[in-house]
Amino acid sequence: MKLSSKNYESRLDTVYDAIVVGGGMGGLSAAIYLARYGLKCLVIEKGKGRSIWMQDLRNYLGIDPDAPGSDLIQHGTKQAINWGADHLRAFVEDVTDEGDTFAVKVKLGRKDSIYPVFRSKYLIAASGVIDVLPELEDMQNVYDYAGYTLHVCMICDGFDMWDQKAVLIAGKESQINAAFVLNWFTPYITVLTHGLCTVSDEMKQKLADHGYPLYEGAIARFVGEKHKMQGVELEDGTFIEATTGLINMGSIYHNKYLKGIEGLEWDGENLVTNDMTQTSHERIFALGDLKKGLNQVSVAVADGTLAATQIWRNIRRKSEPRKWVENIK
Amino acid sequence: MKLSSKNYESRLDTVYDAIVVGGGMGGLSAAIYLARYGLKCLVIEKGKGRSIWMQDLRNYLGIDPDAPGSDLIQHGTKQAINWGADHLRAFVEDVTDEGDTFAVKVKLGRKDSIYPVFRSKYLIAASGVIDVLPELEDMQNVYDYAGYTLHVCMICDGFDMWDQKAVLIAGKESQINAAFVLNWFTPYITVLTHGLCTVSDEMKQKLADHGYPLYEGAIARFVGEKHKMQGVELEDGTFIEATTGLINMGSIYHNKYLKGIEGLEWDGENLVTNDMTQTSHERIFALGDLKKGLNQVSVAVADGTLAATQIWRNIRRKSEPRKWVENIK
Repeated sequence: MKLSSKNYESRLDTVYDAIVVGGGMGGLSAAIYLARYGLKCLVIEKGKGRSIWMQDLRNYLGIDPDAPGSDLIQHGTKQAINWGADHLRAFVEDVTDEGDTFAVKVKLGRKDSIYPVFRSKYLIAASGVIDVLPELEDMQNVYDYAGYTLHVCMICDGFDMWDQKAVLIAGKESQINAAFVLNWFTPYITVLTHGLCTVSDEMKQKLADHGYPLYEGAIARFVGEKHKMQGVELEDGTFIEATTGLINMGSIYHNKYLKGIEGLEWDGENLVTNDMTQTSHERIFALGDLKKGLNQVSVAVADGTLAATQIWRNIRRKSEPRKWVENIK
Repeated sequence: MKLSSKNYESRLDTVYDAIVVGGGMGGLSAAIYLARYGLKCLVIEKGKGRSIWMQDLRNYLGIDPDAPGSDLIQHGTKQAINWGADHLRAFVEDVTDEGDTFAVKVKLGRKDSIYPVFRSKYLIAASGVIDVLPELEDMQNVYDYAGYTLHVCMICDGFDMWDQKAVLIAGKESQINAAFVLNWFTPYITVLTHGLCTVSDEMKQKLADHGYPLYEGAIARFVGEKHKMQGVELEDGTFIEATTGLINMGSIYHNKYLKGIEGLEWDGENLVTNDMTQTSHERIFALGDLKKGLNQVSVAVADGTLAATQIWRNIRRKSEPRKWVENIK
């Protein structure tokens, strides 16, 4: 059922089998499986996830390569609800481990927000990451290209940059190293730091050895039309010709609500999981970009399958077997 | 490119980066990724894979729940070829590890078959399994229900059996244990062994304790119409009312071509793989149902992503970096 500020109260006494934080690719896959295992689940989706940036989902089997990520999200949300999952548009503020249950406090509504608490036996952390973008005065100028010809994922979109003039935008020196992977797809790379870091002489030399120009000044704007880049203009007036680009400025992890929970093993900002996506906390699972491993739609979707299946196994093994009573003498 | 007996010769001198044995869900996902990494790959598909049995692909994110598996295969095959993969309808007879390459001998054409050999640096084993079905005199009668209301995968289709009268068809005593998992979905279970095994007193007692009737006689035919089961008739004339069923008779693994290769670690018929689907042989990867883990479409698709990505990493790391020559002084 679709929940909202109008009907959420009907679920305040429910103990869900699982609450899924994040209604992206992994979370929706988990919800579809949970619902089809006959388990009660609630997906809490804040909106504006990383999938919404994907203008063309090139490499997910079964989808046309020009289908935007938002289509898949919409379709999956509908499926999950049809199979019996609850879905709420809200932001998870805080999660408390109560021992047998989790108390999940959400912020509901942008204005006159309310803060209801939902409860579940298991928690699926599927809230993902969002890419850091270069901050320009006019952010709309960034959004006009990001996800179209200005990419954030080399694995997803390297192919579409093939032998084109490309900018690599990095915010730290270590992020510049992506140039030496991106050159698999194109050697015509110009590196921009947007004035965010100093670059060592060693890195400068390495870039020079590869013939990749480096500009350390701030970006003024992306130039082009209809989402197609033609180049980048720096604040000092320099124009760099480029028909594509890769932003490699790191990610913001949507994992704040997990930071107070004891017993979780972290690897940097990623959660460490086993082969069923279970974290070191036996009632918390982590999917997709939040956990260690490749940040790919297909991986997140499989993660949802694994988490839901393990939760089903755990709950089933603790439950009484259903007998066919009329046949028992 | 679509290869056939008419044009395969153009590829006999090619050393593919990877040959993918099996053009099912995992193999096609791998091919799409390999092609988009700019790697040369050949998918060899024998036809009639397990996906073709799936009449309704219920739980794969992004697909309508009444979409048959064959739609996904057709769509993915087209995508893989469009991105640059080669695809050949043929049967892999034998694979020889030549050290740096594999020699993959295929049987091409049903009549007047020819046996060309293709070569690759890496091998992706994605040839899957096929479910054992009960053998009846009239196999068409089995095919009329299998994949519709007579299921082979509880995880996929348990939900669609909810509280219905169901038969569980097992070929070995150990396979009868599925009844005590299936009862999560329905307790109205009748167990059939089709005369294939003897059942211990202990198991008989356990079934009786749960109220699940056991019939050890041979199945004569499935009764119903338009793929909808109404029951099962045994050869002794007994009629068992059931609107659905689960066949749990094990799987045939399409892994014969791997059996002669040294250095592969097996767990029964499954290949043991690491978290990138790499087997214990560093140039062989195994996907989906062939490897340990859940036999689910979403898992196979993610496996294809992982295998292709690891192969790309390996090849890229060994290759010379592409420099932007005109900028190098």
